[in-house]
Amino acid sequence: MTMDLRVDPGRLRADIEKLSTFGRDAKGGVSRPSFSRADLEARAWLKDRIRDAGLAVRQDGAGNIFGRIEGPGKTVMAGSHIDTVLNGGDYDGSVGVLAALECLRRIKEESLPLARALEMASFTDEEGNLVGDFLGSRAFMGLLDRDEVTRGRTQFGRSLPEILDGTGLTVESVLAASGERPDLDAFLELHIEQGPILETEEAPIGIVEAISGKKYRWCSFTGKASHAGTTPPELRQDAFLGLADFALRGTRHAAIDHYGSMVTIGKVSVHPGVFSTVPGRAEFSLDIRSVSAETLAALEAEILDIARDIASSRGLKFASRLVDATEPVRVPPRIIGILEDECGKLGYRGMRIASGAGHDAQILAAGCDSGMIFIPCLDGISHSPDESIDWADLEKGANLLLRGLARLAG
Amino acid sequence: MTMDLRVDPGRLRADIEKLSTFGRDAKGGVSRPSFSRADLEARAWLKDRIRDAGLAVRQDGAGNIFGRIEGPGKTVMAGSHIDTVLNGGDYDGSVGVLAALECLRRIKEESLPLARALEMASFTDEEGNLVGDFLGSRAFMGLLDRDEVTRGRTQFGRSLPEILDGTGLTVESVLAASGERPDLDAFLELHIEQGPILETEEAPIGIVEAISGKKYRWCSFTGKASHAGTTPPELRQDAFLGLADFALRGTRHAAIDHYGSMVTIGKVSVHPGVFSTVPGRAEFSLDIRSVSAETLAALEAEILDIARDIASSRGLKFASRLVDATEPVRVPPRIIGILEDECGKLGYRGMRIASGAGHDAQILAAGCDSGMIFIPCLDGISHSPDESIDWADLEKGANLLLRGLARLAG
Repeated sequence: MTMDLRVDPGRLRADIEKLSTFGRDAKGGVSRPSFSRADLEARAWLKDRIRDAGLAVRQDGAGNIFGRIEGPGKTVMAGSHIDTVLNGGDYDGSVGVLAALECLRRIKEESLPLARALEMASFTDEEGNLVGDFLGSRAFMGLLDRDEVTRGRTQFGRSLPEILDGTGLTVESVLAASGERPDLDAFLELHIEQGPILETEEAPIGIVEAISGKKYRWCSFTGKASHAGTTPPELRQDAFLGLADFALRGTRHAAIDHYGSMVTIGKVSVHPGVFSTVPGRAEFSLDIRSVSAETLAALEAEILDIARDIASSRGLKFASRLVDATEPVRVPPRIIGILEDECGKLGYRGMRIASGAGHDAQILAAGCDSGMIFIPCLDGISHSPDESIDWADLEKGANLLLRGLARLAG
Repeated sequence: MTMDLRVDPGRLRADIEKLSTFGRDAKGGVSRPSFSRADLEARAWLKDRIRDAGLAVRQDGAGNIFGRIEGPGKTVMAGSHIDTVLNGGDYDGSVGVLAALECLRRIKEESLPLARALEMASFTDEEGNLVGDFLGSRAFMGLLDRDEVTRGRTQFGRSLPEILDGTGLTVESVLAASGERPDLDAFLELHIEQGPILETEEAPIGIVEAISGKKYRWCSFTGKASHAGTTPPELRQDAFLGLADFALRGTRHAAIDHYGSMVTIGKVSVHPGVFSTVPGRAEFSLDIRSVSAETLAALEAEILDIARDIASSRGLKFASRLVDATEPVRVPPRIIGILEDECGKLGYRGMRIASGAGHDAQILAAGCDSGMIFIPCLDGISHSPDESIDWADLEKGANLLLRGLARLAG
């Protein structure tokens, strides 16, 4: 490998700035859910950029887009996604797709000898605007359930077949997408951290050693609605106070007994929801994450015990149901080793880090050695128009991705 | 006074059952906001019932309906309201209006000699579906502010002038209603307790000694929204945990240091309100009540201090604004004395009680000696299709109202 192999940071930045014009919204963010008009335009542009780079462009039945350099043996892949949440930012997903494109462009330009095929990938609907997170990468890995794809509505109130109408894709083509998958050797994904740790530690590079699994539960405390002026404290069955008690005790338990695992209550709905009525019902989301499958299971059980204990002492009923779950992933030592080695050679300050957010890399781990490179984002903010990066960090991350791909495919 | 003076319980019950057919809704409750079609029909029926009783019917500029027996000197009045919350019950307000009608009917039938005029009253929009609580009784007492009546929307999305269109009333007539008020001596209101105390104490009669004042504040904790998977506990500024902490500490403080006063958080809104985001903002209602003006002011100040203390220790900002307030009312000893005396003569088990809910009687207190009689309601439930009373309790309450009015006017 040429030791001075580097990306072209200006070209990469220009690509990212161009992509973020597709779906620019009135609030200064990017709204580009998969198969929206903005996304369809961005897809056409991306395919042109892949062709311009001299790569073979391909789209599978799930709408995942690939750019390939042929080589002997299995395929080494890098990528991410170009879809965004509504009113999201310019970098989440995009940097991983366009850095992968830049890496393959540089490898093509340098005519590096390859012992493997190389592909860059852009996966459909990582953000889960349609039927749930990771539609494209799960379709790619054959992990989609037919029921999941056919039932229910998307967040836009239309069914998936309606959303796909006019795209040339169908539910059947989505379900068959994994049949077109090349034999994978490894996958790398560059992504913004979406958290504050690299920035706090002043490290431009995070080498991901594990990706959290999660349990999403929708929960409720049910008590009895009563008049706020006439019901003395000892006769109240205040569902919201049950939730308040649980929020404090549950998060404290996770922080103290399972530091590094996370418990979050992000969505709350209190009924009947008027000034003068003691709440009879409080519904809320519970987001539990851990990089260890054992800890995740134990923490979930302990948290639910705390909720039941609170319900019992406060005269409430507690109920919950699992609405989503992903398994934690450990990044194989081979991938961590290569990335740490190359990071050192490049002279960058890197640190090992866990990913608390879910990523396509986690889905790809079901079929190959999968790893990730994080770069800092300002103030840990993502999924917001305020998403911001230091371009120098992106250059470092892209160079490490390039060196990692060259090692894996070389 | 004839010692066997009693209401006709069958006639009273029939009136209550008839009134509750106006606005009967699909959920088995009553939806009869003032000036709705159901309310206009109920008003026409009520005026007919007043005429049938041989009373002089009158409506003032605020749509308050009166039935009068002339007499010398000032006026002794009894009444309540016939409007309901949406999907309310059969008894809140209605029992007070129709028991007052029954009392005047009996006094008329018995041709009792009167030293005062007697009136029964049905006040407009006690429930505050239009511009705020007690529209009718506040107009009657000259306590309405012009701005309050002309600005803003009602909960039905229409302005008050639009709501009044076709009723023969106008904003100007509402504001002028107090000019038609007779010189008042005393006011009595029979009402369901809307709380569990009489039922718990097995007392059919509550003699109200004070009506709580309240402070309604709309409050917020503001922190920073961040990713639920990537933001460790020590870097979070979780606005919802601030609210949870406040809800527990604030209600505990009220219950322990000011027992009898009430603090309730009934309405909660958490932003951005998704599973995977640590809440950056939590908005909530604060309902503070006390029968003592001094305690109400002290409790409000202490509660706000607790909120600011929590904000400061959790890296949050706290803000709040007053959105409504009513002053506590002490029932004059003369009224309590008469009611306790008559309750004893009737052989009923009565107890003194505070009203935590607001009532028209509280507004009337600005201009005369005002008191209330409570009867139990099942399980303390009100503002619900599940509102329920024991008819034997209602008969006792109405008899006490009758004897109280006879004493005050006799």
